[in-house]
Amino acid sequence: MKVSEISTPALLADGKTLAKNISCMAAARPGPSLRPHVKAFKSSTLARELVAAGHENFCCATIREIEGMVAAGLDTDLLLANQVLDTNRLGALIEKKSTRITVAVDSEETILAAKNGGISEVLIDVDVGMPRCGCHPNEAGKLAKKARDSGLNVRGVMGYEGHLMHEQDHQKHETGIARAMAKLEAAHADVGGEVISGGGTGTWESNTLVTELQAGSYVLMDTEYARLDLPFEQGLFLLTTVISVSGRGHAVLDGGLKAVAMDSGPPVLVGQGEVMYCADEHTGVTGGFWKVGERVLLRPGHIDPTIAKHETLHVVEEVSEVDDSLVLDSWPIDLRGW
Amino acid sequence: MKVSEISTPALLADGKTLAKNISCMAAARPGPSLRPHVKAFKSSTLARELVAAGHENFCCATIREIEGMVAAGLDTDLLLANQVLDTNRLGALIEKKSTRITVAVDSEETILAAKNGGISEVLIDVDVGMPRCGCHPNEAGKLAKKARDSGLNVRGVMGYEGHLMHEQDHQKHETGIARAMAKLEAAHADVGGEVISGGGTGTWESNTLVTELQAGSYVLMDTEYARLDLPFEQGLFLLTTVISVSGRGHAVLDGGLKAVAMDSGPPVLVGQGEVMYCADEHTGVTGGFWKVGERVLLRPGHIDPTIAKHETLHVVEEVSEVDDSLVLDSWPIDLRGW
Repeated sequence: MKVSEISTPALLADGKTLAKNISCMAAARPGPSLRPHVKAFKSSTLARELVAAGHENFCCATIREIEGMVAAGLDTDLLLANQVLDTNRLGALIEKKSTRITVAVDSEETILAAKNGGISEVLIDVDVGMPRCGCHPNEAGKLAKKARDSGLNVRGVMGYEGHLMHEQDHQKHETGIARAMAKLEAAHADVGGEVISGGGTGTWESNTLVTELQAGSYVLMDTEYARLDLPFEQGLFLLTTVISVSGRGHAVLDGGLKAVAMDSGPPVLVGQGEVMYCADEHTGVTGGFWKVGERVLLRPGHIDPTIAKHETLHVVEEVSEVDDSLVLDSWPIDLRGW
Repeated sequence: MKVSEISTPALLADGKTLAKNISCMAAARPGPSLRPHVKAFKSSTLARELVAAGHENFCCATIREIEGMVAAGLDTDLLLANQVLDTNRLGALIEKKSTRITVAVDSEETILAAKNGGISEVLIDVDVGMPRCGCHPNEAGKLAKKARDSGLNVRGVMGYEGHLMHEQDHQKHETGIARAMAKLEAAHADVGGEVISGGGTGTWESNTLVTELQAGSYVLMDTEYARLDLPFEQGLFLLTTVISVSGRGHAVLDGGLKAVAMDSGPPVLVGQGEVMYCADEHTGVTGGFWKVGERVLLRPGHIDPTIAKHETLHVVEEVSEVDDSLVLDSWPIDLRGW
């Protein structure tokens, strides 16, 4: 199939960029030193490409992602890097299969939920500065003891320095990571275990503490990450069709904010002109010359929530403004929902 | 099932509000004087409630919505109120069934596409002021002639005064609608046909020209519409669970920007406290007291793209902060995608 035969709006991944990003990261963090985060791409087929690159252990953000990865047989070592109360759904997976599932815990309630749901392995989630989940670093040892006393295997610690992912000032970036990871290291000393899990695409090189990096966005890259000096390139595009051209100087594309995430700002036009607005099913563009029926590419700002809006990711040999590129494969985005 | 048994994050509709909104609109615009827009809720099951209230003709924004409505048997009179080039998919539906599908056209290309795709009925889409689709009002008659010359049945005109939907100044609102509808009326005089289609929830009462109102959001209401003095009430909620409580004064809910649209701003907490941020799968809240495991409701700003993120809409007898409301039904959101 050629790109010109795809019904729009549709999500395209540039095959060469995807392959390059995967191999670049695999060279720097081979095998289990990377625990790719499937939340970024929500496709077990893309996850299989990462297995081929040497990474067998994955990180998930939702129960549905875990369920989908188990269904796809990619269940060697799955980490639900999130607090979860609804653990029965996870326990049911373990009962049925020789599946390894570890969950993050940061409270007595989540330890109890893990235990009651049939989970046997946990990481202690530590707050390293971002106002999200994680216990105070001083509490980690105590929680680990509670978890072990209740019969759980505590594999180590987790701490996500998400507040530093997009820091562009090199000095602040490095100092911030050092400070955050000092907290995680101290917590790990109290907790024990072989795992120190954390980091992401934005701290892939600077975070030298973690035994496994939880990066996912690097495969196709966000605009905000692209502003940093990283070796990974943006490879995700929304393919649209011009459905209307106005004498007032604008044209209208057939993909809008239901097809592309807006939380990191509107998408950017590839080629001439600029985006005026995104409505539910339309993007208005101006400052260029378009014809009705012409295909136009948009580059989404934030890949995770953009991919989560689609059923299919079309992998294209090389995405270009010319429509006749070969579609190598069409991957189901099967890990959506909750 | 009780609300407490629903896995979170999940979308809830307040059954009483939904019923009240539907009957209020049906009283004002009975039967075919309302052409409900399914883009707002993307559920053929909800559309069936509107059939029960007397509305058999529907408005769609995407081919997938048309396909889904045909599959559900709700195909008495479907309008694709959008320009479309990929008409073969629509023609295929008409060939198979005694289905009535009308599409909007605003150019020679879209007329040709309608004809070539097997569509036999069109509306001329007229630009009444919003910078989106639609021909110049002066061009409408000429396009209608082209369409008729090519063998298409031109049922009338369509014009959407979307730029006035959220205007809070009453005088500007009324003057703007009058000016926009004068353009549509002039175009209709040139085009002919029995249909003048347009309007929406925000102009439901003031737009007295249209023979059929294209309102959809009124069924569950956006926050922006709720600021206007309308008789419809907000009835959509995201049900979440508190998964983490920090000693730093915040708590974390298990639904984020993948579960709630951000284009009209972040969601609003029902009850104590306020939203700090929405991340992919988390919402941080502060200024209240929460316990891990507690259920918390969020009110989304924009219902259309929020509903499009979910597979299911749970209709609840009466949504409240107490978890034991009865779930009346769980409706598939079957019209998502493109």
